[in-house]
Amino acid sequence: MHVTEIIEKKRDKRPLVKKEIIYLIDSYLDGFVPDYQMSAFLMATYINGMNEEETSWLTDAMLYSGKVITHNNKKGPLIDKHSTGGVGDKISIALVPAAAACGISVPMISGRGLAHTGGTLDKLEAIPGFSTDLSIEAFLDQVALVGCAIIGQTRDIAPADKQLYALRDVTGTVSSIPLIASSIMSKKLAAGLDGLVLDVKFGPGAFMTDIGQAKNLAQTMVLIGAQLGKKVTARLTSMEQPIGMMIGNSLEILESIEILHGRGPKDTVELILELGAEMLILGNKAKTLDEAKQLINQALTSGRAFDIFVRMVKAQGGDVQFVLEPERFKKAEKNIVIEAKDDGFIQKIDSRKIGTAVGMLGGGRFRLEDEINPRVGAELKIKIGDQVLRGQPLCIIHADQRGLDEATLRIKNAISIGKEPVSKPQLCKDRISTIN
Amino acid sequence: MHVTEIIEKKRDKRPLVKKEIIYLIDSYLDGFVPDYQMSAFLMATYINGMNEEETSWLTDAMLYSGKVITHNNKKGPLIDKHSTGGVGDKISIALVPAAAACGISVPMISGRGLAHTGGTLDKLEAIPGFSTDLSIEAFLDQVALVGCAIIGQTRDIAPADKQLYALRDVTGTVSSIPLIASSIMSKKLAAGLDGLVLDVKFGPGAFMTDIGQAKNLAQTMVLIGAQLGKKVTARLTSMEQPIGMMIGNSLEILESIEILHGRGPKDTVELILELGAEMLILGNKAKTLDEAKQLINQALTSGRAFDIFVRMVKAQGGDVQFVLEPERFKKAEKNIVIEAKDDGFIQKIDSRKIGTAVGMLGGGRFRLEDEINPRVGAELKIKIGDQVLRGQPLCIIHADQRGLDEATLRIKNAISIGKEPVSKPQLCKDRISTIN
Repeated sequence: MHVTEIIEKKRDKRPLVKKEIIYLIDSYLDGFVPDYQMSAFLMATYINGMNEEETSWLTDAMLYSGKVITHNNKKGPLIDKHSTGGVGDKISIALVPAAAACGISVPMISGRGLAHTGGTLDKLEAIPGFSTDLSIEAFLDQVALVGCAIIGQTRDIAPADKQLYALRDVTGTVSSIPLIASSIMSKKLAAGLDGLVLDVKFGPGAFMTDIGQAKNLAQTMVLIGAQLGKKVTARLTSMEQPIGMMIGNSLEILESIEILHGRGPKDTVELILELGAEMLILGNKAKTLDEAKQLINQALTSGRAFDIFVRMVKAQGGDVQFVLEPERFKKAEKNIVIEAKDDGFIQKIDSRKIGTAVGMLGGGRFRLEDEINPRVGAELKIKIGDQVLRGQPLCIIHADQRGLDEATLRIKNAISIGKEPVSKPQLCKDRISTIN
Repeated sequence: MHVTEIIEKKRDKRPLVKKEIIYLIDSYLDGFVPDYQMSAFLMATYINGMNEEETSWLTDAMLYSGKVITHNNKKGPLIDKHSTGGVGDKISIALVPAAAACGISVPMISGRGLAHTGGTLDKLEAIPGFSTDLSIEAFLDQVALVGCAIIGQTRDIAPADKQLYALRDVTGTVSSIPLIASSIMSKKLAAGLDGLVLDVKFGPGAFMTDIGQAKNLAQTMVLIGAQLGKKVTARLTSMEQPIGMMIGNSLEILESIEILHGRGPKDTVELILELGAEMLILGNKAKTLDEAKQLINQALTSGRAFDIFVRMVKAQGGDVQFVLEPERFKKAEKNIVIEAKDDGFIQKIDSRKIGTAVGMLGGGRFRLEDEINPRVGAELKIKIGDQVLRGQPLCIIHADQRGLDEATLRIKNAISIGKEPVSKPQLCKDRISTIN
């Protein structure tokens, strides 16, 4: 088999066969196919796309480029959740223990924040001592014992994806649906899942601003699941404004603890119920979405989800006292209150600007090697549609030394007030699933 | 300027500006842009194309990536000819001295053969001692003194093209019209030309089998000439059968010497007259094509072209005695005659098969590092449309030890005889020029 022939086929829009895709990925990982041939292939794929089979084979090839975890002591059905990334997206932190409290085993392999979005691993690491760097054995033991674990991608997991992602990043081939879909699915399925719930974000604060594109991505991932014999449900959810009230690493842990005590903000709890319900349906723990939502809600309000969260924190080396007494979390040095300049209704909260502002304060990463300051962030006091009076606080900025002026300016610009009433945006839109 | 932004523009079909293309090529040559970014750009260009301006800027950037020769002692107008490559294409060998005999200065930078096509440099090197590896100074002196010189591409000439070509070869991005056109034009114009005549081949024996594609390439190159202020004329010529009767390096020198004595085969002489006439028109040495053709013809029949050829051979270190007494050229060990199996008319002579057969005998190159045996080749006794009788010789194969059986089989298959008369193919088709 010649690599140039495979490149030429994709270039000329002729469909590839399974063994060509497997040969390409394996040879790339072995170093036999150099970066410059792979990047030509990636560009041809970006422009000409891939059909369903090709995308599934690519996922399969990347999945089996590394270790695919086997759970020998399976406690419950192995179901995970993945979000394409948003601002203030702390969903996993409360959702994972809530699903575990309902009998689901959650072996979550998660990511770090980049650009304007945060990452679950960075947030969890705001808890002193919390480690996301477990061995596969420790990970398996914890999932079997506690019911859940959240770790970072290891070297063993889908190494071909890791190498391809780095190449896509510098060759203008990131935002391609088959490449994104196969990258997400290969990493996630490597955890040895029975099923996966996808939270595909769209709107101004998401990577995919357009709902059509987001739907296309969701459909592609669900089809990959179908082809590879995995149950997958995707939900399209709006990133018109940040999720919840807190944006920033330890602030989001504090908000998650509130959620785990049954006191979370409405939109965040709604999303946890919806996504958690889908996990229970995939895991056959409920018959209807309504029944499933009630089960998740009970897990949150009863404190059972919180108990599992505490056990997870402990198992991963975190200081449980911080979780039990959240006032122990170090505060940032300064609190700056941004006030409404006018009476009116909140028209818009630009998630991207707020996410970027928090990054500027030191709470996010602009390059992979940047270090994160967990204390800083933004605490919203309003959501879209709220009525406000002049002088009323809109947001409290939690800052240390860095980036205060730029961040303040950006957050001021992010929130707009108008005279006309606006309705609250609808959070959840379409649903696509392999099961119905 | 970010390289990824340039790649993304081409990927998304947004036209590039001049400084982006220059930055890309310069940075690539400096090693700042790695191969894997360039190959993504090349693939995006292959699929999405380039407009006229982009193609000209690319040519310009590659041209000025190296030395652009200045002729201080200009004898006549500096006009060159380039062919896109054919089987039996020995045109330059007699054309260059013929044009020089008419007052044109020809600073030809030529190439080597690859795949089924021969190269002018390989043919000239069949003359013992002939060197195509001159310094730029020696090249300039010879053009000023003799009126012509034929050398190979040096390291100084369009180095960006050399590097890009090697990358295109392994990334499925060779057969792209803007990339081919800019590659040819940058190399050619680096010789410091006033004008250029292009012989763009089409048909079964050419790289571009389709006349539409060949026309597109010709138009693109003429437009590049117009944009860069150079006079360019392109002729589309058919590669339905090999050019002339001889295919093989020293055989083609022998045939060229015949042409330079006014005794060449009809099709070859016709092509020399046509292309030579275009050179004279570009160099203002004649008013009409008919007048120009007569001048070239007189140069051939009078022996003046031959005299200049002898001076060129001498200046480039070749043994003039071989040119004066061509029987000195070493013959191959074996002569195998292929005879007609039937009475009839020659329907087809497959140039590609014949070119490949000569390559198998050792007369061509399948990889750049292959060495060439100048003695071997094929001597046709017929052309398309000729009437033959059973047993009449069609071709004599000149062979040493190598590849005889495969080559014989291939040449037998290349020539087909049928009962129906066929008309002689028309050699020259369209003409495209910057000047009228």
